[in-house]
Amino acid sequence: MKNKIGIGLMGLGVIGCGVAKVLLERSEGISKQSGSPLVLKKVLVKDMSKKRNVDLDSNLLTTNSDDILSDPDIDIVIEVIGGENPALDLVKKALSSEKHVVTANKEIISKYGPELFTLADENKVDILYEASVGGGIPLTNAFKQDLLASNITSIQAIINATTNFVLTSMAKEGFEFDEAVRRAQQLGYAETDPTNDIEGVDAMYKVAILATLAFRTNVTPDDVYREGISKLAWRDFQYAQELGYAIKLLAIAKKDDGAIEARVHPTFVPQDLLMAQVNGVFNAVQVEGDLVGRVIFYGRGAGPEPTTSAIITDVINIAQDIKLGFSRRPKFGLSRTKKIKPMSDIDTRYYIRMRVTDTPGVLAQIAKTFGDLDISIASALQKAVDEKTQSTELVMMTHPARESAMQSALGQLENLSAVREVSNFIRVEA
Amino acid sequence: MKNKIGIGLMGLGVIGCGVAKVLLERSEGISKQSGSPLVLKKVLVKDMSKKRNVDLDSNLLTTNSDDILSDPDIDIVIEVIGGENPALDLVKKALSSEKHVVTANKEIISKYGPELFTLADENKVDILYEASVGGGIPLTNAFKQDLLASNITSIQAIINATTNFVLTSMAKEGFEFDEAVRRAQQLGYAETDPTNDIEGVDAMYKVAILATLAFRTNVTPDDVYREGISKLAWRDFQYAQELGYAIKLLAIAKKDDGAIEARVHPTFVPQDLLMAQVNGVFNAVQVEGDLVGRVIFYGRGAGPEPTTSAIITDVINIAQDIKLGFSRRPKFGLSRTKKIKPMSDIDTRYYIRMRVTDTPGVLAQIAKTFGDLDISIASALQKAVDEKTQSTELVMMTHPARESAMQSALGQLENLSAVREVSNFIRVEA
Repeated sequence: MKNKIGIGLMGLGVIGCGVAKVLLERSEGISKQSGSPLVLKKVLVKDMSKKRNVDLDSNLLTTNSDDILSDPDIDIVIEVIGGENPALDLVKKALSSEKHVVTANKEIISKYGPELFTLADENKVDILYEASVGGGIPLTNAFKQDLLASNITSIQAIINATTNFVLTSMAKEGFEFDEAVRRAQQLGYAETDPTNDIEGVDAMYKVAILATLAFRTNVTPDDVYREGISKLAWRDFQYAQELGYAIKLLAIAKKDDGAIEARVHPTFVPQDLLMAQVNGVFNAVQVEGDLVGRVIFYGRGAGPEPTTSAIITDVINIAQDIKLGFSRRPKFGLSRTKKIKPMSDIDTRYYIRMRVTDTPGVLAQIAKTFGDLDISIASALQKAVDEKTQSTELVMMTHPARESAMQSALGQLENLSAVREVSNFIRVEA
Repeated sequence: MKNKIGIGLMGLGVIGCGVAKVLLERSEGISKQSGSPLVLKKVLVKDMSKKRNVDLDSNLLTTNSDDILSDPDIDIVIEVIGGENPALDLVKKALSSEKHVVTANKEIISKYGPELFTLADENKVDILYEASVGGGIPLTNAFKQDLLASNITSIQAIINATTNFVLTSMAKEGFEFDEAVRRAQQLGYAETDPTNDIEGVDAMYKVAILATLAFRTNVTPDDVYREGISKLAWRDFQYAQELGYAIKLLAIAKKDDGAIEARVHPTFVPQDLLMAQVNGVFNAVQVEGDLVGRVIFYGRGAGPEPTTSAIITDVINIAQDIKLGFSRRPKFGLSRTKKIKPMSDIDTRYYIRMRVTDTPGVLAQIAKTFGDLDISIASALQKAVDEKTQSTELVMMTHPARESAMQSALGQLENLSAVREVSNFIRVEA
């Protein structure tokens, strides 16, 4: 049995500094939890001279990854570089060097998870990635261990803090989209280039990871239908409120008849559901299983502290296993056993907002378009006529319909002379 | 390595039948998750001839616990008898016979946890008790594994489904207490004798378990201050609503300066907090830690299916460990390292409702009573005079005050001639 457990840290950005700080400042507590002293041995950086927010002995820093990969005293590698390159290559090398890996990297786990799990298995080490999804909220063990008895049928998740902050600002403070994004940037909740968050790329990675864990089949980012929040207008929030809904960027994964659907898009959520009350930078993941019923995990989904919490927890768990002489290893096989449902085959309800001419028979034309495609209208709201443009805003909610039918309807509506514009359409989940 | 893993089930009530059913009907799936075939070998019952809601081979039933305890082919004992006797004795015997134990028994875990964990450790077996608190919501592993990096500072929990259903009925449907309890009984959410739930005994057991897990110090039911919900009147809900609060039976555990406070009592919870939105038979546990921030676990806290989910999950986890040749064992030491803060020393805010005479100077007298004890009033609401009794209802909210000062104030108020009655006082948490 080893006396000390050596840690190699790869990456020293905001998260890396947070992790290094906690490893140093709480070394006694963490070592006690782990059952062995944990020692930070080396930190891989790009630039040795960069000023950083953590007081590290300069001897710990290196720009050469081999200083970590070839050090027999390093047992666990923490990867917080982020992105695909060079992180993927370094994680593979670490596993091949029989080092356990803890990573916060949603991109490599969602794209290359099965390959990495297999590589870890072959080298009798573990790869843990709690920090890759939901910040400090415990999620991966929930699926690996805690919900094993149930057949998981669906996941609905608010898993991107930036977009949830933007949507909350739009809903509560009446901001338009651009204004809300600027405010999030000023507060440090959105990056200078917020595309990855705003367009749902981050949420797509995370839901691929969650769906893979929940359904025991490999779901990759390519399998996820994705739509961001940039098309939302404040008017949509006004109508949502009036109709009893909140608008959230939901990451949804469902299983039925052996097929999986996975999608990320703005969604109407009934106001009386807890998910509609998840505001600001908080995240929540709702899981439904046949025995357990509905379970929700809620907490801070981003930021250095919650992410560090998840990373250090993974490190402690691995250290405990090393001490016990036990390698956790993935306990479930992953394969492409279930097929992915194309987006055109999903069934859901829809909200449609359009601008129509103020002429007789408009509603009848629109109703016929829907009716011919077997889409049934649940309710319609028509607003006062705008005298200047001689047009009016029409908002409709449908009963459940097939996405392909809905897409046809949208195409046909845009060709109707009475329809000036289909301003937005948003899917509705209960 | 064993080929098959034998299960002995003790107890065949509502939960026991649920567990037996799932073990039989889903044997293939559970065995796959476990890595070994799981076989239900014996079921301990009190009455062989009782008609039950599960189709079991009568050869499986026994009234003699030795048939389980002495069977070398039984590796895991599931205890769902409930209550202290004979469950405690049987669990001890099972552990001493080197059998792993999975139990749903909050009473024996909260009262005798450390003794049972030590006994398990001595016999190199495990005792898991996920089902003892929060039904199917994964909680025990959250504390044992997932939140290890954080210093947990507080827990607030809605962990009794019966009382939460009763409180929700009072709040939403305007029922008085007795009426709400009768309704819960009709719907099967309250027992014929609902005392254990209504008076907070069940929540007391559960918060002792959670506090022990969170703070790594033994907290027993005797350490928990307890007040039930039977004194609540619909008027309190009216005022709460008016003041922006919900009323919940909160189980609270906090750690400061090394001292622990643990209490169960009706509590004003600000309406904009997620905990205030947890309604009906749902449970939620909010945990605060220094790195992880605020995390909430939400789900069905009672009922045979969620409880079975937790039990079967524990069974699968133990079976996996048996297959890996690894005994999980409690990874943290438990001792009475931290002292328990007496209820008189806690600090919180208060809501007080009283009936006072309609005479000049009443408010001044009451304000002086509070002021002399250093209790500062945050707001006061006075309702219209009831002509018949020449009295009026006065509702006050205080700033944070010491419980001992508040108790003195209540005593003094009742002696003021102007105060007809102190109708209720409820603690307030944010």
